[in-house]
Amino acid sequence: MTTAPRTRLTPDGRRSQLLDLGVRLFARRPLHEVSIDLLAEKAGISRGLLYHYFGNLVGFQEAVVRRAAADLVARTAPPAEGTAVERLLASVGAYVEFVDENYEGYLSLVAGAKSGNETMRRVYDEARAALTDRIFESDTDNLVPDTPAARLLVRGWSALAEEMVLAWKDTPADDRIARDELLAAITGALPALVTALP
Amino acid sequence: MTTAPRTRLTPDGRRSQLLDLGVRLFARRPLHEVSIDLLAEKAGISRGLLYHYFGNLVGFQEAVVRRAAADLVARTAPPAEGTAVERLLASVGAYVEFVDENYEGYLSLVAGAKSGNETMRRVYDEARAALTDRIFESDTDNLVPDTPAARLLVRGWSALAEEMVLAWKDTPADDRIARDELLAAITGALPALVTALP
Repeated sequence: MTTAPRTRLTPDGRRSQLLDLGVRLFARRPLHEVSIDLLAEKAGISRGLLYHYFGNLVGFQEAVVRRAAADLVARTAPPAEGTAVERLLASVGAYVEFVDENYEGYLSLVAGAKSGNETMRRVYDEARAALTDRIFESDTDNLVPDTPAARLLVRGWSALAEEMVLAWKDTPADDRIARDELLAAITGALPALVTALP
Repeated sequence: MTTAPRTRLTPDGRRSQLLDLGVRLFARRPLHEVSIDLLAEKAGISRGLLYHYFGNLVGFQEAVVRRAAADLVARTAPPAEGTAVERLLASVGAYVEFVDENYEGYLSLVAGAKSGNETMRRVYDEARAALTDRIFESDTDNLVPDTPAARLLVRGWSALAEEMVLAWKDTPADDRIARDELLAAITGALPALVTALP
């Protein structure tokens, strides 16, 4: 046997497995629809066991959002090789893929963050900061100077990227530009913006 | 006498005056704090009279948000004279000034729009569309080609502008870049982005 049967999972392993399921559910619906009832039904276990692992509904939903944000940060990590622009393109590609696959959940995270939910705002801000800080940390080609104006500009660029991906995703497939064109526009935007800095 | 006494105002004039007061209150606090009670107190009139003019609280708040959004669109109208970049700079300057003066209300409009309040979303989307459509309508210098990719890019640029202004405003005055530098970065971003389009 190469895999242990489900019943042999440790409590941590079981919790993690349930969280994965929660993240998959969150991909296709807003957070408020990811309920204990739904998860219990999909996982085929009792509601009581879920409360045992996550305390309460808010605890469970927070854990799901944190895991989803951590997935986003991990998946968009730039590759070790290549020029700064090539690595940026790879990151942007992974970002677009993530939003594409987790559209409903991502929209709901943005909504929660902007509407003043403190936990959602913190998770969202931390994920965005991880994505933008990375631009400066992995910038071996000095694509972006590390100045206050450039830091602000990179923040603006991440908002531009998010807006363009969400608007693209919200447009019927026949009416929108090709995915490669979208990636090239977002990736090319960053060095262009830096060049235009006063 | 050059101005009519307050009691001589027509019902429309009185309603408009109350709306102006509502917009001023909305500038410095989130929408949910702009209540009938607060307005009645500030205007020195009865709650009943306010219900007479606006129907109910939601009707009043919608009217305030619509008036504020219309103010934003009107104030940021580009001047008739000048190059495309000069006119864009004037618009961006008026936008930054508006957000600066109406920070709390503006944040609350963004929050309402993103969190799924249908009215707030529509008012916000219409205002943003008015601002971005204008780029194409008043673009006598062909700063931006009218293509699907460029339309998407201008939408991204407006998100960049909003993010940069809100982040700038959220930074203590001593730690942030000068206002002129902010305006130059946002204005210069648009032609730079267009140049980088694939």
